[in-house]
Amino acid sequence: MSGRLTIVGLGPGDERFWTREAAEALASAQALYGYGPYLDRVPERDGQTRHPSGNRVEGDRAEAALSQAADGALVAMVSGGDPGVFAMAAAVCGEIDAGPQDWRAIDIVVVPGITAMLAVAAKVGAPLGHDFCVMSLSDNLKPWDVIERRLDAAASAGFVIALYNPISKARPWQLGAAFTRLSRHLAASTPVVFGRAVGRADEAVTITTLDKAGETKADMATLVIVGSPETRLIARPGREPLVYTPRVAAEALA
Amino acid sequence: MSGRLTIVGLGPGDERFWTREAAEALASAQALYGYGPYLDRVPERDGQTRHPSGNRVEGDRAEAALSQAADGALVAMVSGGDPGVFAMAAAVCGEIDAGPQDWRAIDIVVVPGITAMLAVAAKVGAPLGHDFCVMSLSDNLKPWDVIERRLDAAASAGFVIALYNPISKARPWQLGAAFTRLSRHLAASTPVVFGRAVGRADEAVTITTLDKAGETKADMATLVIVGSPETRLIARPGREPLVYTPRVAAEALA
Repeated sequence: MSGRLTIVGLGPGDERFWTREAAEALASAQALYGYGPYLDRVPERDGQTRHPSGNRVEGDRAEAALSQAADGALVAMVSGGDPGVFAMAAAVCGEIDAGPQDWRAIDIVVVPGITAMLAVAAKVGAPLGHDFCVMSLSDNLKPWDVIERRLDAAASAGFVIALYNPISKARPWQLGAAFTRLSRHLAASTPVVFGRAVGRADEAVTITTLDKAGETKADMATLVIVGSPETRLIARPGREPLVYTPRVAAEALA
Repeated sequence: MSGRLTIVGLGPGDERFWTREAAEALASAQALYGYGPYLDRVPERDGQTRHPSGNRVEGDRAEAALSQAADGALVAMVSGGDPGVFAMAAAVCGEIDAGPQDWRAIDIVVVPGITAMLAVAAKVGAPLGHDFCVMSLSDNLKPWDVIERRLDAAASAGFVIALYNPISKARPWQLGAAFTRLSRHLAASTPVVFGRAVGRADEAVTITTLDKAGETKADMATLVIVGSPETRLIARPGREPLVYTPRVAAEALA
């Protein structure tokens, strides 16, 4: 008899961001898998086994969790943010696609979570308030010219752009190159938001402009939002400005 | 002394989708504003006033909530899904932008939630597992040719596409026209997912293909995901197929 693999989105930080559904899925699991630092966010519970792994072994982690679920266990895989956005759900599907036939009998449940762009957007106002694109800047397999083509398409068509995986030790120049590329289509004054570790103790949010964006520090824990020509700032005395992209269609309804 | 306006994302359905942060924000508010059916999801609490409104008065609703917060109250505005994605956060920012100067002294807090595309994606696997675009199909103010241009840009550059507000009584033909437009760029076999009222009692999820998508019923409560050329189905005996878009970059890391 096949068991279940539940892929649980923890959101961007601590338990404040968990949904009730996520908390229940974690509590009822017999075995917990995940990237070590994400698993560390989940309180230990008697009778549960824990299987932390590194951040570059998504495939191996998915395979181990699926094997245990295929043997009949109730397995939970924790994922940062939302499992479906540059996270574990697609990795699990990929392993099922390539794996043994009996893995297709496993009950697969995905529990959505607050993905980083929603948490960062919430911190500054509503920069994703109108049409937007969501991209990973990682060129580990996707060729860089595909990324450039997507940046061109998104910026020239008026989308706001959320960038995941903007930079890493092995990819030091890509974020700067992306800003340069976007400058072909967008004004120097276009608002850009950097959100690092939102929801955690070392949270840092920076609001800047496209011409200055290359000077702002980013790392693997940073999510970058580049505005569209419609994105606006609202200055506020004694507070950070609000950044928003008008809900044009909604205004028409109102 | 100015108060606070907290814009709270309720997610797509019942309290299972609330984060702890959302539950706490709702519990501590003195006054609750929102579209009536969303407000009905929030349990009544002694000492709180409730101010339901219709679904076409976002601007008036935001104005009333801001006025009360400017008078010093702790006000919560409920929003379906995530407040920042085609919902109330941008409407509130727009009212502040156009409103009296003292509204800029109000503490504005946005509490993120599970937006519809994450809930629908979770139901079928991981269709948003790689680069994607998010669009409203409403042409109430945005001209239809802008929507077509964005559909062209997104599909031709290889993005998966999530469509909000696909159809309404006043906009009966736009979704069909969007599928026709996307067919210029995408194969007839491209997977398309319709998710209606996910997380609610009348939830309905349909997996189809682009050439058949025009035959599937949709309404204002439906979120549509159109795959990219990379989006795949995994057939499963006795279960609905999984739909996913491979995390190419992640595979490279793994």
